[in-house]
Formats: sequence, structure tokens, C-alpha cells
Amino acid sequence: VVLEHVKAIVLAAGGSDEMRSSRPKVLHELAGRPILTHVLGALREAGIDSVALLAEGDVPKIAAAAGEGVRTLAGGFDAAAGLLADAEGDVLVVRADAPLVRPQTLEGMVRGLRERRADAVLLSACCDDPRGYARVTRDPEGRFRAVVEEADATEEQRKLPEVSPGAFAFRAAPLREALRTLKPSGFGAVLTAWAAAGRPIETARPADMVEVYVIRNRKDLVAATNFLRWRELERHLSAGVTVVDPSTTYIEADVQIGADTVIHPFCVIRAGVRIGSGCEVGPFAHLRGGSVLADGAEVGDFVELKNTRLGARSKAKHLSYLGDAVVGAGVNIGAGTITANYDGKTKNPTTIEDGAFTGCHTVLVAPVTMKKNSKTGAGAVVPRGQDVPEGTTVVGVPARPLGKRRGS
Amino acid sequence: VVLEHVKAIVLAAGGSDEMRSSRPKVLHELAGRPILTHVLGALREAGIDSVALLAEGDVPKIAAAAGEGVRTLAGGFDAAAGLLADAEGDVLVVRADAPLVRPQTLEGMVRGLRERRADAVLLSACCDDPRGYARVTRDPEGRFRAVVEEADATEEQRKLPEVSPGAFAFRAAPLREALRTLKPSGFGAVLTAWAAAGRPIETARPADMVEVYVIRNRKDLVAATNFLRWRELERHLSAGVTVVDPSTTYIEADVQIGADTVIHPFCVIRAGVRIGSGCEVGPFAHLRGGSVLADGAEVGDFVELKNTRLGARSKAKHLSYLGDAVVGAGVNIGAGTITANYDGKTKNPTTIEDGAFTGCHTVLVAPVTMKKNSKTGAGAVVPRGQDVPEGTTVVGVPARPLGKRRGS
Amino acid sequence: VVLEHVKAIVLAAGGSDEMRSSRPKVLHELAGRPILTHVLGALREAGIDSVALLAEGDVPKIAAAAGEGVRTLAGGFDAAAGLLADAEGDVLVVRADAPLVRPQTLEGMVRGLRERRADAVLLSACCDDPRGYARVTRDPEGRFRAVVEEADATEEQRKLPEVSPGAFAFRAAPLREALRTLKPSGFGAVLTAWAAAGRPIETARPADMVEVYVIRNRKDLVAATNFLRWRELERHLSAGVTVVDPSTTYIEADVQIGADTVIHPFCVIRAGVRIGSGCEVGPFAHLRGGSVLADGAEVGDFVELKNTRLGARSKAKHLSYLGDAVVGAGVNIGAGTITANYDGKTKNPTTIEDGAFTGCHTVLVAPVTMKKNSKTGAGAVVPRGQDVPEGTTVVGVPARPLGKRRGS
Repeated sequence: VVLEHVKAIVLAAGGSDEMRSSRPKVLHELAGRPILTHVLGALREAGIDSVALLAEGDVPKIAAAAGEGVRTLAGGFDAAAGLLADAEGDVLVVRADAPLVRPQTLEGMVRGLRERRADAVLLSACCDDPRGYARVTRDPEGRFRAVVEEADATEEQRKLPEVSPGAFAFRAAPLREALRTLKPSGFGAVLTAWAAAGRPIETARPADMVEVYVIRNRKDLVAATNFLRWRELERHLSAGVTVVDPSTTYIEADVQIGADTVIHPFCVIRAGVRIGSGCEVGPFAHLRGGSVLADGAEVGDFVELKNTRLGARSKAKHLSYLGDAVVGAGVNIGAGTITANYDGKTKNPTTIEDGAFTGCHTVLVAPVTMKKNSKTGAGAVVPRGQDVPEGTTVVGVPARPLGKRRGS
Repeated sequence: VVLEHVKAIVLAAGGSDEMRSSRPKVLHELAGRPILTHVLGALREAGIDSVALLAEGDVPKIAAAAGEGVRTLAGGFDAAAGLLADAEGDVLVVRADAPLVRPQTLEGMVRGLRERRADAVLLSACCDDPRGYARVTRDPEGRFRAVVEEADATEEQRKLPEVSPGAFAFRAAPLREALRTLKPSGFGAVLTAWAAAGRPIETARPADMVEVYVIRNRKDLVAATNFLRWRELERHLSAGVTVVDPSTTYIEADVQIGADTVIHPFCVIRAGVRIGSGCEVGPFAHLRGGSVLADGAEVGDFVELKNTRLGARSKAKHLSYLGDAVVGAGVNIGAGTITANYDGKTKNPTTIEDGAFTGCHTVLVAPVTMKKNSKTGAGAVVPRGQDVPEGTTVVGVPARPLGKRRGS
Repeated sequence: VVLEHVKAIVLAAGGSDEMRSSRPKVLHELAGRPILTHVLGALREAGIDSVALLAEGDVPKIAAAAGEGVRTLAGGFDAAAGLLADAEGDVLVVRADAPLVRPQTLEGMVRGLRERRADAVLLSACCDDPRGYARVTRDPEGRFRAVVEEADATEEQRKLPEVSPGAFAFRAAPLREALRTLKPSGFGAVLTAWAAAGRPIETARPADMVEVYVIRNRKDLVAATNFLRWRELERHLSAGVTVVDPSTTYIEADVQIGADTVIHPFCVIRAGVRIGSGCEVGPFAHLRGGSVLADGAEVGDFVELKNTRLGARSKAKHLSYLGDAVVGAGVNIGAGTITANYDGKTKNPTTIEDGAFTGCHTVLVAPVTMKKNSKTGAGAVVPRGQDVPEGTTVVGVPARPLGKRRGS
């Protein structure tokens, strides 16, 4: 744990929703995860484990997306005071719709509070187009003066380039006191009041200006997706992954890829996928959530893996769908192989053990197992539950062991 | 009808063809439609229904692409006079190879003619790189003086940033007179002569500079494709569609998509496709002309729909080809399902009624129908004309009802 | 042969390797070819057939990639002297990790040496961000003074925009002499010493600044890929190819495409592929090495061709894999057709003669031949070696001629 004695309050409420959607804004997906989970992840990475989320609208759904480690409550800023009753140490306030902030920046805010003995630290950045953001005003000496909501800003203030994305660090005790006595309209107003009273307010700057980006509508979401996409691509390149043509590659957040793995163009790699070293992926591969490639595995073109583990040096090179499957090492998945994991009601598992080989256009009707070094012939349909014994080859529709066909 | 008493003349002739193609330039595709149809569509949207197209080269083919509502004639500028014999009201002249002009801009030109009591209105725009365009010259007071073709322009004139893309609005009567008496070399020359005579000429500016873009070669076509692609993507985003990563999404013109539908990366959605609300499309989906997705339908990866209707909440998630098919509601299309719609001679239809379910690697040899709630087993090949009865499951190659297999 | 009496020395050794890879840097792929082969190709195109490659690390592997026409030796700059023992005429020195140089630029360097009677010609370019490159210093009159390695450069020198990417042309005799007597630390040092001695040194500038680009890490490789990708796309557009949306199209180096062929979005076309005129490719097509499309052939979506020839007007439109196949003219490959070319040990060939037709979901188990005008039914699995006779239709699993099924 990096940051102790810090309580985080995440505001998922308030702010206009211009998404034109029936879904709450913070539940829209960004790089494969709901928007709000990005800032929750940054808080977790910064070592903050006491997190409260204030939400409006479909609170149960938002709570489900936030997950178990987060205390989700109905309410907006007005509900924040109630969260501080027993808070000690420091409080970090962030917005759920500002997903690009990095853990290091959050740490820096708390460190600034502690090391510079400030009562509050405000995250701010200067940007070319400050529209849509609260502005930061300063006195002639450059000292923080106020956070001015855009709606309240004068024509002159709207031209100021420094914006506040609504992220603040406070000492808990004075914040609790301020919320009780000042009846402020928001956290920014606390800072403004404190600055007027001469209390010490510091500013933190993110390493990258995009960290203050707030998502309001679908175009913002697209821009944020693009930022994250390239941030992740650079991370993989730096780690020794060959991404042949990043501009035609879509990799979501929270993906692990080993060194010397090659990602060919036109791949979709979803959040949470794990890929080993020395693998080949794509072109035209779709690796969905829960998929794992062991070292040296190869997934070729027009292949989807969903919640599937592909063992070391195993290959699925063409036109295949593997869903809810565990595939061992040294397996060859023939072109056109499909695991029929869905029977119209539930999803069933498939197991393909080490050294197995599926012929082209094989269908494995789950649940079913191909034992070690077993084989299927081209066009075989292996029925549900009829496991293929070790070392055996089955052929036909439905598949039967070679030499034991119907009528023979 | 927005604009009454307007006759449009579309020039598809003249101008050098640098496409290096055996096809007429204006028949090359832009965002899924022949280049010339874009300006025809803008005229239609502006409410102009009297349209004459002057074409050279393969006139019958160009006429076919222009469609029935357009009177297509062989000839270039010289043939224009003949079109005005009985024209009343106003005349709008545009180029078939300048496809990005918007209906609003065309309306604005005619409105300018009428409201500002001008004899002609010229569309013009200032651009960084005016090369390839006729230039607009003005007198020291800024009044229009002349349209100068690039070939005729002096070194000095070539530096002028204001260009004329060859779009003009005229009053019909004086234009007819001018073409008869002035023997001009082009429509621009009429304006130049009138300006010299002190007649009132007005200028219209497009909302977006790209509207004046003229396509001369394949690189221009690529640039125009890019403009249109992003214009369409922004339109869909604004309408509440989630386009996960627009930079890896290819959506042509004239596509309708409902709110809260998600378009995943690497999709090709062709001109004219209709997608309902709450659908999921892609990644790696190819929706071709004539395809319709009802609300809540899902098309997954490596799936092509061609001239196919997919009913409400129906799903085709993996590795399938549905061509010339009508699919009802609540249908599950198993991975690897193919409608064999082509017998080497003609394309045949497939019908899949509500609640049907196809097993993986099913082939439906068209023409054929799967009745309500019928099923196929994995690897089934349903022969041509052998409809699957309501509620029945068929299996095998060729497919027979369960329990009625050959030999049993 | 354009350039006679020129010996080229390619340095594949030295320089830091920031690729974080177990593979030698110059063997990483750029546009489908190992990095080092690009400069070797440029030398070949410039008509230089005497090429020596100095390599370190896994020399046999590097030699294999360089190919037979190149003499590959272990060693770095110190080994260069040994290569000049019997060299006459001129010597061209280039880096294996600077792959974007064009043949014309190499020719220009040698021509400069000869026509301007210089002792050496240095390739240089001015760039916005010279970091990572040796700098070129000049005297107040602008005459070449020195090549300064970045590590040796002063703060002031590091600000100079002119860089040397390590490409030089020399007269062989004085170079041999210089290497023997001066004991220089590199080729640049020879030029520096000669300039100090007042000997004539000339500079050559590439037509395009990117030609001096040196690849050090994976981000450089990505940038070089992007440069090459667009260079190739522009080449195809200029040749009359319709690339519908270049930004979503990935075409490697050394691909030939005929006029009026249409390349749809989301295609991967690998190095060395040959495509005729009037073809249609994609979307979602993967044409791998060794593939050839005759005029008018069509490859549709989710189709991979590997080392396969598709004859004139033949079509493989959907969900197919053709590997190691020779397909005649006028063939229709049904959706879901797969050549099972891999039996777990070796790759086997498939032949499909003129006018043949494969039903949907056909598997052809190689080695096998479909004779002229033969057909397979939907779901047919044609066993290895059981050729389909001319004009015959086979159906079933395994496939048998129509009317001759088991039991009939």
C-alpha cells in the first residue's frame, strides 16, 4: 500500500449527461471497462483502499460496476459530508467521469498536501480549449484564488487557460468542518473560501495534460478512447512487444503481453486478456475477456477466443471459434474448428488436452473433452459428452472412432 | 419540397480524368455510392426535382447510375443552352465531381439569388492550396470581378486563395439570353461578363470549406472518402450511437443507426444499411447493401450479411454468412452458419422464422425455410427446398429430422 | 545495371539495440521483410551487385535473411578494411538499420562522387529532431568540416539540425589507404580527417527526409512502418488502383497490383503478393506470401490465401482458407471452403481446375485435385488423394459421387 490514511470520494453524480443514452454515462465503456472503473483502478494502484462512490440514477447498476471493494451510495455532493463523520487523515476527491488520471498524479496530490503542509491541493492543467471546465483564478502573485464554475465565469474568466477537473486533496478534519459550517456548493467552493481566508492551497499538475479530461458526450468518449489506446500501445511497444501497425490495432486497457510477441494488424484484444512471450496474434484475431495465451501460442486470422486458455505452442490459425475452452500444450486447432458452447440456454465448457489435433471444420459440442493426442477428422461433429479417448481419431457426423463407423 | 422553381444542371463532362481507370471518373465509388450520386442526393435533399445531367463518355452507364429521376444527356457545357429553352425560375449549376456540397449550401445559393436580388450567385471558398481550381478575382472594393480558369491565370492570380468549384445559381431568363448572345466558354465566363457589365453578382460560402472539393484523381478520391467518413461518424455519434473506435470503423454514406447501438472496431457498414436501437455490431462485421437489423439484434465477428433482414433480438455472433435471407425475431444463428444462396447461376432466398436455432456449421441450401422454433444440429446441411417444419430438429448431411435417420 | 564498379558495404553491426528482443534488430520485420533487406533491395535496384554485409550476433541467421547474393561476414567497422583489399572503383557504405533510403538517392551519391570529382560523398539531411544521430558540422563558408558522433558532440553541436545517417560514397583506393594509415574510429572519421586535410567532400540530400531514418527501438520501427505503408499506398493509387480507405488498409512492401483493382478496407496484403487488373479484394481479406490473383479474380471477406494462385475471374468470397493451392480460371469457391493442407507434419498441395465449383463448407484434404468443371456439395469432405473427376459432383462426409452413396 502506497498511500495510507487516505479516504477517496468519487463523484459519479451531477454534471449534464449529453450521451443521448439510456445508460448512465459512467457505465459506458472506455477501452473495454466502464468509465468509472478507470479512476477506481487508479485509486487502487495508488494504494487507496477506502473508496466511497456517490452516484445518482441507476445506483444498483453503478454499484455493481464499481465492485465489492467500493462503498456505493446514492447522492451527490450534499451526501459527501456524511462520509466524513469518522474520516481521519486525508481525503481525495475525484470525478468518475475523468478517467485518464494516473495513480502517480493522485499520489502526488496527497504527497503535496503532506509535504507542503497545505490544507488542500487542487489538480489543475492549462489547456488550449478550456471550454466546459471550471476555471482557476489566481491573484497577481500567482497564488490560487478561486475555482469558478464555467456557468458563473465572466467573459474574462472564460478566457483563462487553467482548468480544474474537480480533483482535490484535503485534510479530513478541516474539510469536515468546512462542509458543516460553510455550506459550500461544491468542493471547489471550499477551496475558494479557504483561499479568501488566507489558508494554504497548493496546486498539482499532472504529467500529461490529458489526465484532467472529463467525458461529457460521445465525442469526448471517442477522444478518451484514442488517448488510452495510444497510451496502451506505447506501453506494449516499450515492453518489447512487436505491434506491427498500431494504427490498425485495437488493444483495450489492462492487457498483458509478453516480450517478442507479435501482434499483427486488425486485432481486437479486450480488457483483461493475458498473452505470453513469443506468441503470434492475428491479423484479424479477436481475443475476448478471460482469454489467456501461454508462451509461444499462435492465434491466426478470423479466430475468436472467448474465455479460453490456449496452452504453450498451441495453434488456432484460421476461421475458428473457441469459447469457454481449456486447450493444452502443443495442440493444433484445424481451420474452421468451432466449440459449440451454447445450447440455447447455457454456456458449456470444452477441454482439449495436450497434443490433440482437430481436423478442419470440426465442431466440438460442449461439454466435451478431447483427451491427450486424440484427433478429429475433417468435418467431424463430436457430440456433447462423448469424450474422444486418448490417442484416438474420430471422424464423421456424428463423430465415431475410425474403423468403427456405422454399418461397419 | 424546399426549393421550388429550380432546375439543376449537373456537369459530368469535361475536366481531365487523372484516375487512370477504364471507368468514367464520376462512376467511381465514394463512401459506397458512385461519385455523381452524392451531388444528386444533395439536390434531392434541397428539394430540387428537376435535374439534368450532361455527360460524356459511357453515357448509358452514367445515366443508369444517375437513376430514373434524372434526365441524362450526352454533351458538355455547349449542350446546356438546349436545356434552358423552357426553363423558368432559377437554375442551379453544379459539378458531378464535387460531391461534398451540402443541401443547405445549395439552398443558400438559391436563397441568395432571390433575397439579394442578384443575377447570379457563385459558390466560392478560400483555401490554403488553391491549385487545380479556377480563381475568383475581385476589385479593390471586394466586388466580384471574374472567374479565371487556372490555365488562363497569371502568376499573380494563381496566388489568390479564393476558388470557384464551378457551382452557380442563375435566374433562368438572363442565363438563357447570355448563353445565346455571349457565346461564353463556360458558366464562369457568364459571370465575368455580367460583372463587367455591372450586373449584380453575389457570393455564397459553404459552412465547411471541404464542400468545394473537386475529385480529379485517386488521391482526391481518398481524401474525399476520409472527409465523408468522419462527417458520417460524427453524425452517428451525435445521434447517440456508440462507435467504440471511429478510427478503425468504416461506415459509408446513407446508413441509419439507432441510439445506444454499439459499433465495435473493424466493421464495414455499406451504404443504405439500416440498424435499429440497442444493437451490437462487430468487431469484424460486414453489413452489405440491403441489410436491416431490427432493434436489439446482434452481429458478431467474421459475419457477413448481404441483403438480409435480421429480426429483433436475433443473433449471428460468429463466422457466418447470411445472404438474401429473412430472419425472424429471437433467432440464434450458430457459429459457422452459411446460407448457400448461390447455385452457380442465381441467388436464392432463405427464410428463418421466429425462435429458430441453427447449430454450428449449418448450411442452409437456398431456397429453403426454417419454420418457427425449428432447429438444426451441428454440421447439418439442409437441402434446397426441404423446409424444416415448425418445432422440429434436423441433423446430419443431408439433414433429416432427429430419430428419422437413414437406417434407423 | 545502373551503377557499375561499385562495391557496397552494409553495416549490420554496432549501434545500441533498444528493441528489447531476443531477435537481432535488423531481422525484425518492416512491411513484411526483415529490416536489413530493405537497404539490400535499394542497392539491388540501384544496380549494385557486389554487396558485403558486416554483422554481429547471430551471423548465420542474418546471412540467411540477407540471401545468396550478399556476402555476409562477422565483424563491424574494423572488418571493413579487409573487404577493400581488391576493391576498385567506388565504395558505398550504408547501414542495415536505415531502411528507407531510395535507390535514386544511392545512385545520386555515387554520381556525385564521379561528376563532382569528390573523394567522398556524405548523405545528410536536416531534421527537426536530430537526437540520436551523428551531427554534421560545417565551416563558416558552409563547407563540410566533420561528422560528430552524438556521444562526442558539444551542447552547441547537438543543436545542429544536419544529421549523418552513416551513408557514404568513397573512391575505393583512397579509402583503403585511409583505413590503413589513419586508423579511424568509423567511416565518418575518415571524412573528418580528409576535410581537415582539404580534400574535396560533397554532400548528397535525399529527395525525402525520411530516407535517413535509423531504427533503434520498436517505436522507430512503428514510425518506419507507417512511412513505408503510406509510400506504398500512394504508389498503388498512382498506378490506378482503387484503395477505398487507405487508413484502414495494410499493404506491405513489394506488392504488385493491377489497374482498376479495388482493395476494400481491412485487408492485409503481404510482401510479394501479385494481384492482377480488375480484381476485387476484401474487405477482411488476408493475402499471404506467394499468393497470386489473376485478372478479374475476387477474394471476399474472411478469406485467407497462402501461397495460392487464384485464376482469372475465379472467386473466393466468404470465410475460406486456401493454402498451397492452384486454382484455375472461372472457379467458384463456396463460402466456408477450406483446403486442409496441413496433416500435422507437412503442407500438401491442392489443385482446383478451371470451372470447378465447391459447395459451402467443403473441406479438400490435400493432396487432392478437383478436375475441370467438377463440383462438391455443401458440407462435402473430399478425402486425401481421392481426386474429383472432370464434370463430376461429389457430396457427403467423406465425399462420394452423387448417386453412388454408401448403401445405394
